[in-house]
Parts: sequence; C-alpha cells; structure tokens
Amino acid sequence: MGYDQKFMEEAIALSGECFQSEKGGPFGAVVVQNGKIVGRGRNRVTADNDPTAHAEIQAIREACQYLKTFQLKGCEIYASCEPCPMCLGAIYWARPDVVYYAASRQDAAHAGFDDSFIYEEISLPTPSRKIPAIQHACPAAQIILEQWNTWKKKVSY
Amino acid sequence: MGYDQKFMEEAIALSGECFQSEKGGPFGAVVVQNGKIVGRGRNRVTADNDPTAHAEIQAIREACQYLKTFQLKGCEIYASCEPCPMCLGAIYWARPDVVYYAASRQDAAHAGFDDSFIYEEISLPTPSRKIPAIQHACPAAQIILEQWNTWKKKVSY
Repeated sequence: MGYDQKFMEEAIALSGECFQSEKGGPFGAVVVQNGKIVGRGRNRVTADNDPTAHAEIQAIREACQYLKTFQLKGCEIYASCEPCPMCLGAIYWARPDVVYYAASRQDAAHAGFDDSFIYEEISLPTPSRKIPAIQHACPAAQIILEQWNTWKKKVSY
Repeated sequence: MGYDQKFMEEAIALSGECFQSEKGGPFGAVVVQNGKIVGRGRNRVTADNDPTAHAEIQAIREACQYLKTFQLKGCEIYASCEPCPMCLGAIYWARPDVVYYAASRQDAAHAGFDDSFIYEEISLPTPSRKIPAIQHACPAAQIILEQWNTWKKKVSY
C-alpha cells in the first residue's frame, strides 16, 4: 500500500491528544495493515512513569496484540515525527514494510527532545558516550548465547 | 557505585531463564540503585507477542514502576549482552549513570540476532534503509511541536 494522508492525519491528531490530555509528549503513531488501522500509539512517558512509552512503541505493541504476532510484515507505520533511535530499533525488530513520518528529528530537537543527541551518541564507541556502556566479558554469557544458537526448539525473532 | 560482579551474574542468570522457560531470547538485565536491584528484565518477545519486550526495556519499566519515576538517575544497568539500538535508546531516555554488559553485539549477531545490522542501518539516510523511512512533512505536525515548546504546563522528559 502506498502513502495515505488520512493515516498521517490520524497520527498527528494523536500527537495533539497526548499533550492536551497531559499524558505525555506531543507524539502519535498508527500501524496500518491492508488499509486499516491495527494499532494506535500515544506518548505516555510522564503519565505512566514509563520512559519507553513512546507513540511508536505503543502502536507496535497494540498492533502485535491485535494481530497476535511479534512481526508486522505487510504493515506500514505512520508517525507524527521521525522515530527516535529507540523507536527505530523497535521498528526493525517488528519489521513493517515502511515508515512514514511528518516532523523531523531536528523539529523534535527544537521542541526540546533528545532525538538528535541520541542518534549522535549511538555511533560513538561505547565507553566514550555520555552514558558510558562498559563491557565486562563473562564466559557464562557467551555460553548461553551459544546454547541458544544450537537449540532446536528456539523460536527466532 | 562501581561495577559489582554479582549483579552481572544475576543478569546472566535471567538470560538463561528466558530460553530455558521458552519465553523469549537469551537475554537478561537488572537495574541497580544504591547496591539493590530495583528492576529485573527477561526477554519475552515470543511469549508475549511483543517485539519491544527485550530484557533492558522490561527492567527499565519495572524499575520505573517500583521507583515511581520516569528517570533512572543514580542507577546502573547490568545486561547479559550489549544493548541493541532500541534498548540503548530506552537507556538514553531513562538516563541511568552507566551500563555494564557481558556479551557483545557481535556475540549476539553470531547467535542469529539483528543487533549489529540495526546499528549499521541507523546511520544510513532514512530513505536508503532496508526498512525505508520516508518524510511527508505536514504543517500540523510542526505546529503541535511548537505549541508544546511554549506550553507552560508541560512535563519535560
């Protein structure tokens, strides 16, 4: 399915609802399958004390519950703003066909959000980041990954 | 607080639980505050039909519920494996002081997970990615972001 403006308007309407209802930041998203909305997301970070409750994450979770799957192949995501790295990562794990967005990460930065900053940090070496990520290698962790790799009953995702 | 091996051992123990109980991939994480575990996370992607249910996301959500906050300042995160971009993004929004991890993104890739691939994709121009992200700019989306920017009642995050 190609781009359809009515779904973007729905995502933007949700973005307005979020902060007018004082539930979270001004971001909305919808997941569409075969021309039908199968998941809606509103930012709920501050209302729910959940820093992961971004609109795209909420919409993906709702769509997956509705469709009873952990994969969104054949779906499109419409977002009122360019997904932040967290949401983009979630999109890659859910694997929809395409993402359409209205405002950009620069627009989000201008409104006081860290999206652009996080994009910059992600490409830095892990110990050099503002939130340092430091490896303490443990053989036990690698052994578990290797066990998974050869485990016949695994459900890949 | 500095690195403490016992918390890494707990994260790794959770990573083993995940796939032995057939709930999801082999990943675990804990959030620690003042030497005490305040959130635990196990991968639940396949069991819950939730592609966002990675261990770090689950641990952050549990810690935020327990601490009644959407910010994890003063906390450390221990993860059995290097956080994927989604989880790294979640970490930046939650803002703990530091992340410690055992296995690397290359170890995860070797076990069949997309972590390294997603790291590569994130730095590409949005329309060139394997899951293309295409901007359709809408004035309404930018207006809502500008309203947020000047809104006196906003709760920043």
